[in-house]
Amino acid sequence: MTQVKGGNTMLLGSVEAGGTKFVCAVGNEDYRIQDTTQFPTTTPKETLQKTIDYFKQFPDLKAISVASFGPIEIRHNSPKYGYITDTPKPGWSNVDFVGTLKQAFDLPIYWTTDVNGSAYGEYVLSTLFNQKINSLVYYTIGTGVGAGAVIDGKFVGEIGHTEMGHIRLKRHAADLDFKGICPFHGDCLEGLVAGPTFEARTGKKGKDVPLTDPVWDIMAYYVAQAALDTTLMFRPAKIIFGGGVVSEAFLKKVRAQFKDLLNDYVEVGDLDQYIVMPLAKNNGSATVGNFALALKTYLN
Amino acid sequence: MTQVKGGNTMLLGSVEAGGTKFVCAVGNEDYRIQDTTQFPTTTPKETLQKTIDYFKQFPDLKAISVASFGPIEIRHNSPKYGYITDTPKPGWSNVDFVGTLKQAFDLPIYWTTDVNGSAYGEYVLSTLFNQKINSLVYYTIGTGVGAGAVIDGKFVGEIGHTEMGHIRLKRHAADLDFKGICPFHGDCLEGLVAGPTFEARTGKKGKDVPLTDPVWDIMAYYVAQAALDTTLMFRPAKIIFGGGVVSEAFLKKVRAQFKDLLNDYVEVGDLDQYIVMPLAKNNGSATVGNFALALKTYLN
Repeated sequence: MTQVKGGNTMLLGSVEAGGTKFVCAVGNEDYRIQDTTQFPTTTPKETLQKTIDYFKQFPDLKAISVASFGPIEIRHNSPKYGYITDTPKPGWSNVDFVGTLKQAFDLPIYWTTDVNGSAYGEYVLSTLFNQKINSLVYYTIGTGVGAGAVIDGKFVGEIGHTEMGHIRLKRHAADLDFKGICPFHGDCLEGLVAGPTFEARTGKKGKDVPLTDPVWDIMAYYVAQAALDTTLMFRPAKIIFGGGVVSEAFLKKVRAQFKDLLNDYVEVGDLDQYIVMPLAKNNGSATVGNFALALKTYLN
Repeated sequence: MTQVKGGNTMLLGSVEAGGTKFVCAVGNEDYRIQDTTQFPTTTPKETLQKTIDYFKQFPDLKAISVASFGPIEIRHNSPKYGYITDTPKPGWSNVDFVGTLKQAFDLPIYWTTDVNGSAYGEYVLSTLFNQKINSLVYYTIGTGVGAGAVIDGKFVGEIGHTEMGHIRLKRHAADLDFKGICPFHGDCLEGLVAGPTFEARTGKKGKDVPLTDPVWDIMAYYVAQAALDTTLMFRPAKIIFGGGVVSEAFLKKVRAQFKDLLNDYVEVGDLDQYIVMPLAKNNGSATVGNFALALKTYLN
């Protein structure tokens, strides 16, 4: 049994449901983590049971927010609301995630995508850091690519969640022969810049490809296009890039290419403040977002 | 002096400020046009004076909404709020449009882009036609290409208005030699599908190019990509295409290519209901939008 410090504060639950691992945490209304655990994503039955067992340790829990890998059903008027739908991950298609938690807990449960959770966390942190912004878009570039958009505290997406990782891009002249690795679309954004593209292009893992290698310029060209299209379609206050592929040195390249592509067409302010790494360190954005969404759900 | 019928209803003003002509209208809170006029866009001085002279005929006017060509400044906290900013149109850069109207009229004035006005008109009409939707994106494809997005009755765009006409696209294999006609970006969406691209590609005007010509398939491929990126980034309830280049026969081609590109990755419902022509006939969306925005401004 895990002891929680400061027993008088409100306890909120966070589930980051990733395709590789689950990270569960409890925290307070000030978004601080009080306790956390993680375990590999195995079968739905086993993994959801571990999730339930973890939160059962905290009888004072007020609400839980889940930021899940997808695709997921987020429309409240759908009979499949709360489900993971047609995922390529074996065994996880058509799994009633929220329903399973609801059977174990008589608590409000918030349900959104992993990237929406992260986007919301960055939105909340921006306010805490005294940045007066009302909109942002958060991209993660790792094993896959996804993004979430928050405008005025709400997620963008009416008939389902966004899937910005799969937009199409102008191909780089030096990369025309690369077919891309997305099983659905070939050379969409994910197919061109997800982590595994390093092995597909160079035979080496991304971490073993020095930043001086021209493949990084090709990557930056595509990520800059994603930032450009995001700018033209949302005019958000900032665009955040997180995930294993992203570093500050890489974003420097992205900003330079973005500047060329935009050609001063619209104003975005200081580029160093506009295209940025997450405020939360160690991929912690989603946990903060979950605490904030759990709190919001509890208060409504 | 123009007589207005039904004197007891509220009078609202609409300005569609286009680069070629201005259309001014007065209408009621039920969005019906009572009177309208149009004149060519000449100098700012002359054109804005004609606009003022027109509305001076209606002393009962309660509010005016302007849907203008751009780029324009829409941020209320900017000293240039209400201006047309750096437009390529000679003489119209740095023109204080709203300020000039404010000097002539002691009325609330709403200020947005031409495409936002049209998007809002289609949003309002959708509700009147009993379509339960909360979001849409409206594209116009004519001399230029632009789009506006409405979510929950609000325009998307925090640090400025959207400029979706300039997103980048994957080039069509049979069109790689065409450099595009956008003076800022070459082969952005506008550079690839605006009306004048017909002459640039074929030497003929679009209206003289039969729909069986393969150039229409190239056009459909790019417009389908715009619809795809819009889908993945917004998940709106519908996407509307208006403007001189668009016809129902052309949208049929767009839907077919969209279906291929999407590859069933997300659900969008019935494609014939999702990718559509405007509900307002004869490019009337912006006038309806202006009446609704003028009313909203008056009531706030």
